[in-house]
Amino acid sequence: MAITFWYDHSSTYSYLAAMRIEEVSGAAGVEVEWQPFLLGPIFAEAGYGGSPNLTLPSKADYMWRDIGRRAEHRGIGFAKPEVFPQKSVSAARAALSLSDTQRRAFSKAVFRQVFVTGADMAQEEVIREAAAQADLDPDAVLAGAAKPSVKEALFKAVERAKAHGIFGAPAFVTSDGTLFWGDDRLEDALSWETTGALPPGR
Amino acid sequence: MAITFWYDHSSTYSYLAAMRIEEVSGAAGVEVEWQPFLLGPIFAEAGYGGSPNLTLPSKADYMWRDIGRRAEHRGIGFAKPEVFPQKSVSAARAALSLSDTQRRAFSKAVFRQVFVTGADMAQEEVIREAAAQADLDPDAVLAGAAKPSVKEALFKAVERAKAHGIFGAPAFVTSDGTLFWGDDRLEDALSWETTGALPPGR
Repeated sequence: MAITFWYDHSSTYSYLAAMRIEEVSGAAGVEVEWQPFLLGPIFAEAGYGGSPNLTLPSKADYMWRDIGRRAEHRGIGFAKPEVFPQKSVSAARAALSLSDTQRRAFSKAVFRQVFVTGADMAQEEVIREAAAQADLDPDAVLAGAAKPSVKEALFKAVERAKAHGIFGAPAFVTSDGTLFWGDDRLEDALSWETTGALPPGR
Repeated sequence: MAITFWYDHSSTYSYLAAMRIEEVSGAAGVEVEWQPFLLGPIFAEAGYGGSPNLTLPSKADYMWRDIGRRAEHRGIGFAKPEVFPQKSVSAARAALSLSDTQRRAFSKAVFRQVFVTGADMAQEEVIREAAAQADLDPDAVLAGAAKPSVKEALFKAVERAKAHGIFGAPAFVTSDGTLFWGDDRLEDALSWETTGALPPGR
């Protein structure tokens, strides 16, 4: 049993999901494939100005409060990044160039850089720092991210995301192709994968 | 202890919340004030074309699948209404003109008309049918909805919604003024009201 975890390193709720998906999926006995992609090209088609969470000041304010409240409740830390949304293409390419185990460690380190320390991942030194925190060689990670084959893989990932009907992140796709959207649907996706139904009380 | 339940009769996730809030809040020992309002004026400021869930075909498709899946899981029935979003101003005025107990019965009947039978509440006969199902006199309900004082009360409700930072529905406001958005945050709002914190495992 396996689900795919679609995430953008610039997505607030992807941060929340990334920090708990290994524990929660492990408890459910479900494997997880970490699949970075880019929301930018999808949001551009919808006409959002950067993020659907920024369409109204009241909605943006709520999102930051909701994220901060949940992060504090889960003990994972949170700081509102000075730059938001951020250009996440370099982080996505770097993550895609890595093996599955390396990718998890690197992506979690990027999320912590952005949403715990508030750094801007568009800056090369932030990618380097995340690589180092994931026990990877920063030069090797940057070289991997620059490969044409990796750029092509990211382009194709966005196309596959669209084909799955993905319009936001995090998204979870079960092995029967069912889509679940949002950190608060992770339990639903895991239950769907293991039992074919939503969990009790949802 | 009491929270306010802000809902628009045209809101899909307000339907899900309305059908369970009495049971869930009762179990938590929290009173609920049912507060109808209109999302239309708020969405218009955000520049949405009717509903933020309709900005992308993939997002709209997901919403209908998610609602249908959850409604089936909860055994409350669901049919996608032919008209969506619907003009909910008459239903909101009618609901506001009623006592609290009558309002709950009437609003749940409207939600069932719209999201179980698929009717259009902009049609007067649908409001009449909902009133009858709530054991109310349809003529009296329509007369109440037409009162200038009720129109004024609805206008003021939208202004208060904006003042609370409400940008979507359902929304729950706890007695300390904290806002929670979405049917999937109802448990958070009840826990916040009773303990001042999110529930375990959120």
